[in-house]
Amino acid sequence: MSINMQVLDNTLTKENIKHWFEHLQERICKTIADIDGKATFEIDIWSREEGGGGKTRVLKEGKILEKAGVAFSAVWGQTPTKILEALKLENADFFATGVSIVMHPHNPHVPIIHMNVRYFEMSNGVWWFGGGIDLTPHYINKEDAQFFHQHLKNACDAHDEAYYPKFKNWADDYFYIKHRNETRGIGGIFFDQLNDKPKEQIFEFVKEIGNSFVPIYSHLLIKNHEKHFSEQEKKWQLIRRGRYVEFNLVYDKGTKFGLDTNGRTESILMSLPKEANWEYQFEVESNSPEAYTLSKLKKGISWI
Amino acid sequence: MSINMQVLDNTLTKENIKHWFEHLQERICKTIADIDGKATFEIDIWSREEGGGGKTRVLKEGKILEKAGVAFSAVWGQTPTKILEALKLENADFFATGVSIVMHPHNPHVPIIHMNVRYFEMSNGVWWFGGGIDLTPHYINKEDAQFFHQHLKNACDAHDEAYYPKFKNWADDYFYIKHRNETRGIGGIFFDQLNDKPKEQIFEFVKEIGNSFVPIYSHLLIKNHEKHFSEQEKKWQLIRRGRYVEFNLVYDKGTKFGLDTNGRTESILMSLPKEANWEYQFEVESNSPEAYTLSKLKKGISWI
Repeated sequence: MSINMQVLDNTLTKENIKHWFEHLQERICKTIADIDGKATFEIDIWSREEGGGGKTRVLKEGKILEKAGVAFSAVWGQTPTKILEALKLENADFFATGVSIVMHPHNPHVPIIHMNVRYFEMSNGVWWFGGGIDLTPHYINKEDAQFFHQHLKNACDAHDEAYYPKFKNWADDYFYIKHRNETRGIGGIFFDQLNDKPKEQIFEFVKEIGNSFVPIYSHLLIKNHEKHFSEQEKKWQLIRRGRYVEFNLVYDKGTKFGLDTNGRTESILMSLPKEANWEYQFEVESNSPEAYTLSKLKKGISWI
Repeated sequence: MSINMQVLDNTLTKENIKHWFEHLQERICKTIADIDGKATFEIDIWSREEGGGGKTRVLKEGKILEKAGVAFSAVWGQTPTKILEALKLENADFFATGVSIVMHPHNPHVPIIHMNVRYFEMSNGVWWFGGGIDLTPHYINKEDAQFFHQHLKNACDAHDEAYYPKFKNWADDYFYIKHRNETRGIGGIFFDQLNDKPKEQIFEFVKEIGNSFVPIYSHLLIKNHEKHFSEQEKKWQLIRRGRYVEFNLVYDKGTKFGLDTNGRTESILMSLPKEANWEYQFEVESNSPEAYTLSKLKKGISWI
């Protein structure tokens, strides 16, 4: 009996993955709310007519964070036609679960962070993991950028030394605002349809990425949130947030897919900042920190 | 000789259309800046490597208007593949000219307005006009909505009684934010690929639409810009502007086409408001003016 139980425990099911993600959401919200010290993450539970649902947790007007969203969902039903067409597959049911995070701080010296981990499977046996973390500093700070990328490289290297270079380039390509010829920030890692190893092994990697959110962002929050900032720096932050909105609404595949397939709009768009600005022909002073940041919003920079 | 000259004068060329549009831009900027009384429209002249260019005029921080853009352009060259594919046509050169306007007022009781008039022709003889005007009140006011639609109906009826009902429905369908199940505002008229009458006749209609901008918007500006507004009403305006950004970046075909085809980003995105807000699960009080406005952001409402 105890042997059978152990076998069951070692079999990785979609339910195990779902529960791990749900618990990850809880842990992240708890720690980040503790660090913020003022606001908490309100919980919104929703269900989806076609199957499944989610728990969206949003913090508003914290001491350090202006708006932060951590969304968990697990949905299932008939696979959307768009996915089947893209994969050239016949009708099948799907199951998808994941955690998505975007946090917008008050202080322009604290970066915006985004993380996503997700698992997808179909009744025909197809499965994969996807995810990533990327950082969008309003002001690029070399030390923070190095810390961020080094942490991600270590997390990747523990599982496969090919991961970091591959997923770092993927992030550079993915988080790119073509019409501005700018990356969204300093990138990070991005991966999709990862299934080239046993499921258990890849899940261990995905867990490592999920677990790296708290140590990464808590360090960046604590280190930077008390820095002084000027009105001019706040203005620049609002302009950079405008670019963040442009990326999410024009290019982000998750956002587009969600809006296209009648996803839960409020959960999808919780990634947008509370306030964003657009100014026609906004120009930065040469040799300013803003100009330095702009000069580094490029693909292919080695931050380590 | 004088007979020949007259014949020449009556022939409608792309140059004539271009000049009329360029002059329209000038007239609109002049009158709107006079009404605003504080700021003026700065001029930015740009050219396009592949042929043509434009004149973008933007007013910032006026007394009544927070941000207003009036863009004129006339561009030519090889027809983009996307258009050729959509029309199932062989390679051809194109010429496109138009005026695009978006104005964002300070006062939430003044509506956002958008107008576009455009002409397109190809070296293979294909040509058409397109355009439209639509109004996005932060607070819907029945009297203003009726005035707006009545003015457009009169303008249409002077040319073809079939136009207003057809182009009004088209605007309802076009200015629709699917993921919110809301229209952008109270619609107006929208038309595209209009070429079912002699070019001169359609141009007369397009001129009538272009000329209607000043009487329509100056009336709405003068009538509403001194109305008192509360902090709560300002907040609602910023939320509605967020929706405007969502429409423009997610659905607007002109914006998408421009960004896709390497258009001039700053001119395309001058339509975005200076400041927009997003609040997770923003809810309006029942029986409030905000709830009334939301209830009217629907297709198929007869405003006259």
